[in-house]
Amino acid sequence: MMSVDFAGWSSAHQSRFEDVLRGLLPQAEVMPQRLHQAMRYAVLDGGKRVRPLLAFAAGELVGAELGRVNIAAAAVELIHAYSLVHDDMPCMDDDVLRRGKPTCHVQYDEPTALLVGDSLQTLAFQLLAENTLNDDARHQLEMVKLLAQASGSRGMAGGQAIDLESVGRALSLPELENMHIHKTGALIRAAILLGAHCGTVTASQLNNLDHFGKCVGLAFQVVDDVLDAEADTATLGKTAGKDADNDKPTYVTLLGVQAARNMAGELHGEALSALDEFGDAAQRLRELADFIVLRKF
Amino acid sequence: MMSVDFAGWSSAHQSRFEDVLRGLLPQAEVMPQRLHQAMRYAVLDGGKRVRPLLAFAAGELVGAELGRVNIAAAAVELIHAYSLVHDDMPCMDDDVLRRGKPTCHVQYDEPTALLVGDSLQTLAFQLLAENTLNDDARHQLEMVKLLAQASGSRGMAGGQAIDLESVGRALSLPELENMHIHKTGALIRAAILLGAHCGTVTASQLNNLDHFGKCVGLAFQVVDDVLDAEADTATLGKTAGKDADNDKPTYVTLLGVQAARNMAGELHGEALSALDEFGDAAQRLRELADFIVLRKF
Repeated sequence: MMSVDFAGWSSAHQSRFEDVLRGLLPQAEVMPQRLHQAMRYAVLDGGKRVRPLLAFAAGELVGAELGRVNIAAAAVELIHAYSLVHDDMPCMDDDVLRRGKPTCHVQYDEPTALLVGDSLQTLAFQLLAENTLNDDARHQLEMVKLLAQASGSRGMAGGQAIDLESVGRALSLPELENMHIHKTGALIRAAILLGAHCGTVTASQLNNLDHFGKCVGLAFQVVDDVLDAEADTATLGKTAGKDADNDKPTYVTLLGVQAARNMAGELHGEALSALDEFGDAAQRLRELADFIVLRKF
Repeated sequence: MMSVDFAGWSSAHQSRFEDVLRGLLPQAEVMPQRLHQAMRYAVLDGGKRVRPLLAFAAGELVGAELGRVNIAAAAVELIHAYSLVHDDMPCMDDDVLRRGKPTCHVQYDEPTALLVGDSLQTLAFQLLAENTLNDDARHQLEMVKLLAQASGSRGMAGGQAIDLESVGRALSLPELENMHIHKTGALIRAAILLGAHCGTVTASQLNNLDHFGKCVGLAFQVVDDVLDAEADTATLGKTAGKDADNDKPTYVTLLGVQAARNMAGELHGEALSALDEFGDAAQRLRELADFIVLRKF
């Protein structure tokens, strides 16, 4: 797909991946129906699918079979989706709007949203175990381990715990970075590494991809903070200004908008440098880094 | 350990397993500390460890290495513990007492309890992926798959969804059985099968163990309903009579105490029959079946 431009490449993957998710999620008519309908509601028709796109770009880079990367990308996206459902619940961020739609607990109810999140997480690991993603089962176990480490108490969920503890407290820049490296960075890195693990990849390549993922993941969050501070609710598809309202520390509250933008730019440059060894083959990853830093929503 | 009696065998495993869990859970001083403390609070010092004991008995039956069964048993117990933490939350059963202690969200807070449950589930899969549990990695992936299927929307979480939908509604006996086969039965079966998968086991043995697990799992629930209807809060270590208060269908509300007891007895007999091919080697599993049906708490 290298002959098409980035917009064409990403929209083709996005629409194709939507069908992949439709097929992998439990069908709405399968018991328990309300839970399965709510799982589909929480995952389908929404989001930019940034993590899957990163997995597809990394997979293409190492010549991985698309059918395998589909599963890895879906596993990562289900973890992301579960975290959004639980994050939006009244006891967490108490958000009513997500991706321009009522959040899961608003559309269904709280107990269902709790089970939706729980079940989406389980499904992520189930997908990694019940499909062949690498000819060597040991590599596939490594993928399960990677996703679990990125998602758990020393990864994404741990980042959310640090976030909870930081509300109303003055965080230093290193503390804020530590929070985001866990909260959003870990899963973004996992998306790239899981995509790469579907193909043949050297330790040095994994290292560079990991560093790329780390920079892009952090840039993603910095840009998110800038957009949240600047955008209005309609453009964002979620309640804008929420972080400032909640007195949560962000890169913008800590650095101001301009310095936060500069920081995103530096991370962008560092991410691109990490791709040097790959030459032209890393074009899609470069374009994704551009997209993440330059996006307006 | 076959020379000791069942009480000695189970209490030795229970106390040894407590140390195993202490070592496998994130240490309390590791960041994020409050989350890790709450994870330890939710898992340690509590429960009869029925699922781990079943895993140990199945592991011994097939000559599995104890170090491997420890991990499999811990993974199952973490899934069980996560489900209790989420079940107890205000939006679900809103329970304040569990295993004689304040529930996780009471002791800590709701957002922390949500993340504790999420992180315990992740840790279960992480443990299955980052330890060697079988010389053949493909068998180990099968274990990940088994645990995920038992836990997800077509397993335990699905059973909870059916449970939610059944509140205040008249369920038939088959509907009630379907709920419990998912809600508690699936994980009990998984405990036995995961223990067995740590060793060398034939398809016929797995089949019989699975049938044993199915009967024992259902008997476990029937006995739970009887105990909940009869016991007082002090003996049970959780709020008694809760199910009847919530107008939830149980085997007792559907059949009455005596017929429920008879049903548990029949399931007990069927479970024992499934062990015939194993002869004396299945003694611990038989004793566990006895324990589950004859327990008073």
